[in-house]
Amino acid sequence: MTATLITNIGELTTNAGSSEDRFGTMIDAAVLIERDRIAWTGATADAPDADEIVDAAGRAVIPGFVDSHSHIIFGGDRAAEFEARMAGQSYAAGGIRSTVAATRAATDEELRTRVRGMVDEMLAQGTTTIEIKSGYGLDVAAEERLVRLAAEVTSEVTFLGAHVVPAEYAGRADEYVDLVTGEMLDACAPHAKWIDVFCETGAFTVEQSRRVLEAGIARGLMPRVHASQLGPGEGVRLAIELGAASVDHGTYLTAPDMEALAASSTVLTLLPGVEFSTRQPYPDARHLIDSGVTVALACDTNPGSSFTSSMPFCIAVAVRDMGMTPAEAIWAATAGGARALRRDDVGVLAPGKRADLVLLDAPTRVHLAYRPGVPLVRQVWKDGVAIR
Amino acid sequence: MTATLITNIGELTTNAGSSEDRFGTMIDAAVLIERDRIAWTGATADAPDADEIVDAAGRAVIPGFVDSHSHIIFGGDRAAEFEARMAGQSYAAGGIRSTVAATRAATDEELRTRVRGMVDEMLAQGTTTIEIKSGYGLDVAAEERLVRLAAEVTSEVTFLGAHVVPAEYAGRADEYVDLVTGEMLDACAPHAKWIDVFCETGAFTVEQSRRVLEAGIARGLMPRVHASQLGPGEGVRLAIELGAASVDHGTYLTAPDMEALAASSTVLTLLPGVEFSTRQPYPDARHLIDSGVTVALACDTNPGSSFTSSMPFCIAVAVRDMGMTPAEAIWAATAGGARALRRDDVGVLAPGKRADLVLLDAPTRVHLAYRPGVPLVRQVWKDGVAIR
Repeated sequence: MTATLITNIGELTTNAGSSEDRFGTMIDAAVLIERDRIAWTGATADAPDADEIVDAAGRAVIPGFVDSHSHIIFGGDRAAEFEARMAGQSYAAGGIRSTVAATRAATDEELRTRVRGMVDEMLAQGTTTIEIKSGYGLDVAAEERLVRLAAEVTSEVTFLGAHVVPAEYAGRADEYVDLVTGEMLDACAPHAKWIDVFCETGAFTVEQSRRVLEAGIARGLMPRVHASQLGPGEGVRLAIELGAASVDHGTYLTAPDMEALAASSTVLTLLPGVEFSTRQPYPDARHLIDSGVTVALACDTNPGSSFTSSMPFCIAVAVRDMGMTPAEAIWAATAGGARALRRDDVGVLAPGKRADLVLLDAPTRVHLAYRPGVPLVRQVWKDGVAIR
Repeated sequence: MTATLITNIGELTTNAGSSEDRFGTMIDAAVLIERDRIAWTGATADAPDADEIVDAAGRAVIPGFVDSHSHIIFGGDRAAEFEARMAGQSYAAGGIRSTVAATRAATDEELRTRVRGMVDEMLAQGTTTIEIKSGYGLDVAAEERLVRLAAEVTSEVTFLGAHVVPAEYAGRADEYVDLVTGEMLDACAPHAKWIDVFCETGAFTVEQSRRVLEAGIARGLMPRVHASQLGPGEGVRLAIELGAASVDHGTYLTAPDMEALAASSTVLTLLPGVEFSTRQPYPDARHLIDSGVTVALACDTNPGSSFTSSMPFCIAVAVRDMGMTPAEAIWAATAGGARALRRDDVGVLAPGKRADLVLLDAPTRVHLAYRPGVPLVRQVWKDGVAIR
């Protein structure tokens, strides 16, 4: 059995922490990888022998990022819409529906090439676990195709037929929900782990959202919810009531939302790339964390509201504009993402966990926020295999 | 003679524009490189033969970035100070003086390794021209060493002995200016092209700044000025009066400053990494450009106030938070930087100019702002040589 030892790690963040340091920080540390798992972590001086030695030369190692919210299977892009929005102009040809049209028009091979390219791009930036949502098909065949193709590249597939009401159902949202909870769910559920809905004014009401989530749960899918992105609403409390793993966005949370989140097992997944790319106000992660809410960070990679795929970028913005410490932001982007996906095998570097880890071109994790935009991901292991 | 043709460029930004499009945008274009220069640009269909063909496959090409403001020759880092600042805490051990101590303590070889590593990091991100300032030595031997070592890696060396008053001259700033304008200038001028001063409350007064700049000019150096970073002041107008190529920061400009800039040949170099990393307010580049000010963008890479070295990151922030269009921000980071260095051989892709260019992993330049944090620099040529 081949074992790889990463030695001379200047600062190792394990997230296998104690009450004293929940980030599980170790100085001058080493990690032993056997097959696809972490076999041992400890001081370099105590490290066991191994077939292959990787000298970190004082650099920092962190768990691989767990990006629990993405929409990376789609056709086209919306660069012109982005450019218009940044110039304060409206852009009639934009919106989710333009991506739906481009996605429906794409061949399977075009979509495969695109999604695999995105996965590779994310892996190269240290993201070793990726959730992928459907939601740019919005008819039975197109949604089935998206979850099926997404399942070729990740086990974290989310059926988001209720992303937006498609043009052909304009004014007939309840009928579209009938389709989503009926024939579309039948087609998609076999490929998916999660059911999701965009519970927001202009998308789906709380009653429609409840129907979607309960239908998915009845088919064995687990719930997660988009809520409070564009304004306050009842989506957060619906998510908590239904035991959602995560409620995502939370740009406009109310005080009762925060109290309910803090008392729940539902993670709040913040998406700083969205506020960055739409000039919305940033949620106050500092206050949320201090109130007892479990916060995850994800990129929400999508061609409309957040086309970054960079977890380091999201970490830097979360520190600058949401008041998180660098350690909290990295925890949220690793262990937090794992909780948002109800996974206990990733996001933590400890014996028995997946050997998903990132060697940084930096002496400490703080550099991910201290050096925004700089590609600091030097090497990535996923399931024990060195990717780059 | 070896010639390289880059063909099938989806969108070529030359900055060799007309009144209709000052960005000089060409669709389905090609660029011919001969030795270290651009030999030809035009439509792919009209492209001449070449020994080597690079197929851009529809991707975008832009001029290499011209980063006209950096402080990348130093020892140590200040990650702990950054972390404390982000947490709203003061940090007594921080400040420029801590970097001065680490820089003085470093060996020549340590400084060489560091600065070359930074240059490589910047090249890999598309920056093909780099200005480097001294200013972490603050005694004659230490400043001479910094400009001498900087001159090993760039022709754009700036003597910034007047960065801050060193601890040993506390309360005796005028005496320190005597040193800077006397023995220190004598030692440094042979290695430098530029004279610079930090004209700001807490650093050097406008009178002291004038002395520094005039002494440098008398020695054949060209002036550039740090001003209005921490509050409004007279530095901007001093810079214009002395014909500075650029005045840098401009976080707190007054209306008369803007009018004077618009009427001058002095470039205003904005440094969004500083506002990002210090949570200062962003200057309104939109208003500045609309007022007729020539704006450049630079990273101000330094261990204290802006440790990013990513021009794409600065472009994304300039678009999001300073109101620039993507094309304006890229112009500012290329042609604008060239003007800030009084260079006409870089920042523009046209026959006779240096073959410094960047192939993006994106179909248009807009993606640099649309996809913040994502490493989109696919290939870089400097002086006609492919770097990566």
